[in-house]
Amino acid sequence: MRDSFHEDLEAITALQLKMAVLVKDAIEKATASLLTSDLALAEKVIEEDAQIDLVHHDLDERVIDLMARQQPVASDLRALVSAIRISADLERMGDLAHHLAKLARMRYPGSAVPPEFTDLIASMGTEASRITEKMTVVIEFRDTARALEIEKDDDAMDQLQRKLIAALVDPNGPHNVETSIDMAFASRYYERFSDHAVSIAQRIYYIATGEFAKS
Amino acid sequence: MRDSFHEDLEAITALQLKMAVLVKDAIEKATASLLTSDLALAEKVIEEDAQIDLVHHDLDERVIDLMARQQPVASDLRALVSAIRISADLERMGDLAHHLAKLARMRYPGSAVPPEFTDLIASMGTEASRITEKMTVVIEFRDTARALEIEKDDDAMDQLQRKLIAALVDPNGPHNVETSIDMAFASRYYERFSDHAVSIAQRIYYIATGEFAKS
Repeated sequence: MRDSFHEDLEAITALQLKMAVLVKDAIEKATASLLTSDLALAEKVIEEDAQIDLVHHDLDERVIDLMARQQPVASDLRALVSAIRISADLERMGDLAHHLAKLARMRYPGSAVPPEFTDLIASMGTEASRITEKMTVVIEFRDTARALEIEKDDDAMDQLQRKLIAALVDPNGPHNVETSIDMAFASRYYERFSDHAVSIAQRIYYIATGEFAKS
Repeated sequence: MRDSFHEDLEAITALQLKMAVLVKDAIEKATASLLTSDLALAEKVIEEDAQIDLVHHDLDERVIDLMARQQPVASDLRALVSAIRISADLERMGDLAHHLAKLARMRYPGSAVPPEFTDLIASMGTEASRITEKMTVVIEFRDTARALEIEKDDDAMDQLQRKLIAALVDPNGPHNVETSIDMAFASRYYERFSDHAVSIAQRIYYIATGEFAKS
């Protein structure tokens, strides 16, 4: 019974990893579509979000099935409930990549990102990708050291967002309201994306150690 | 066993209602603090968010405890997993009210809402309050008719947001970037707030009927 339970848990982790890989691909493509006004790439991210939703649904069904079949003890239940929350976070990360791609599509053939903001958006994209990479390692290896690192990476993301907003409201800034709103929303999507990665890392840290990560 | 299970479920619904009442109070106070630049009220919303988080935590613990004690069958487990998702939605609604209050506090003693946007923000606030009221009835009475209505109310909220963004980017609009970003974010918070109420209504509809609500 316990062995089969752990096999089931591994299958759940495998589905989380599948979602993480799709999410990393989505955020990288979404960033590229924003920076290069690549409509085909934006469409791809928008379409592929359905795939993330499917794995999400599959994962949750497996967790409920496992709860029903194995009648796990409280500590295992806690891990299973965490798995449901983690898949919700991953699904939401997919949605946020999808929002970024929709922004690229909405402004096509123009660019949502004015030249003076290319570097900041590229940095937020790189940070998002790095955080997702690290989150994937945390999921796969229950790597608690990296789980703690992600919180610092998230601080870097928050700083990038503050820098972007400051540049928008600068009296010498672009002053175009539509562009400013696009950039403000884009930065919010990256920031929220990163928050969900932190939340996943914190959940895994808690399951692995029984303690809350100090932030 | 089954009777005690249903008593436990009722206790969980009672905690959901407690969260819903706190969330409704939070969004109404947050809207008032934005519209009247009331710092004390904004601070109250910011402080009281911790209370919502506490009930959220209490609720999730009870659900896990119930799963462990009663070893429910698959259909009951589905309802319990839904309860965990619903409490996450409610907690996030509290966060969004908190974001609105922080916006009011950040611009104090000035106002985050310029006079020409007072009506739109007031309408979004009224809509958010109405949706939360309806969502509370859906939670309390498993009211599937009202669960379907909420989706239409959410369409009204989306329209208000589009109207607000259109007014911001209007060539005759305010053209102040900082104000525009404040208003864009505020509208986004209301819109997301409403999305979470829809998500709660849909989950309850599914649990009550076994079918997905058609949107």
